[in-house]
Amino acid sequence: MFKKRDNIKEVEEGKFLYPKFDKNGLIPVITSDFKTGDILMHGYMNKESLKKTIETKEAVYWSRSRKKIWHKGKVSGFIQKVKEIRIDDDQDSIWITVDIGKGASCHVGYRSCFYRSIPLGETKNLKKLKMKFKERKKVFDPKKVYKNETNPTKL
Amino acid sequence: MFKKRDNIKEVEEGKFLYPKFDKNGLIPVITSDFKTGDILMHGYMNKESLKKTIETKEAVYWSRSRKKIWHKGKVSGFIQKVKEIRIDDDQDSIWITVDIGKGASCHVGYRSCFYRSIPLGETKNLKKLKMKFKERKKVFDPKKVYKNETNPTKL
Repeated sequence: MFKKRDNIKEVEEGKFLYPKFDKNGLIPVITSDFKTGDILMHGYMNKESLKKTIETKEAVYWSRSRKKIWHKGKVSGFIQKVKEIRIDDDQDSIWITVDIGKGASCHVGYRSCFYRSIPLGETKNLKKLKMKFKERKKVFDPKKVYKNETNPTKL
Repeated sequence: MFKKRDNIKEVEEGKFLYPKFDKNGLIPVITSDFKTGDILMHGYMNKESLKKTIETKEAVYWSRSRKKIWHKGKVSGFIQKVKEIRIDDDQDSIWITVDIGKGASCHVGYRSCFYRSIPLGETKNLKKLKMKFKERKKVFDPKKVYKNETNPTKL
């Protein structure tokens, strides 16, 4: 589906796409909010979901917990409209910029999955470090939206 | 070093840090530029490098290609001063915001590793898709800066 990676110079400096999928067939994806610039989530795509994302201009991931193609927002309604897709120097990670309107990207209910900030400087007892919440209010109630869906968070 | 993950509610909604490292002992890290909001790079940390990053307020990664702790900028001079560290809902990925001044983060010489944009919409022949360069000029000459260091890009 994609070109074979056979030349480092081409991968780094060329105009063609040579995405590198790991041994599970996945490439990590950073998703940022085109309005605020905030990172909304960190996910993964396989070949098929990357192709679908380019084609449909809506973010399609691979769900590692559900082990299937995941059209983000299909259940919650919070579709991510893709404004731009970028790839990095060695083409083993992807950055997509998306429009989610006034919606959310986090299954816990916040706009961004990255709603907690780790205090800097002190590491004597990492078990006692207290994070700060950077989002005060949930955008939606996950219990109402996801109903009987299983929680993707695993221990 | 870090708390044991034994309660999903605590991991998602608590104030304590329960980072999840994969079977290689790594957690993915998104690094963004505190001035422009651009994503600079996608990397990985192990327990030790996460601790060092919190402690020293300078980004310390795990280099998968060199298989060692990687104090970013030690060779190039482009140290990343950490302004904030966030963690996501299930605590299996990290977002750091850094100050690199007028420096660069990409070993190819660009400011951001994500200097190419993938055109949207057309997927009939993914092998012929031509990306657009979003950065025109390199910040530094990698040959001069890295000299005999081996290229971290692998095919």
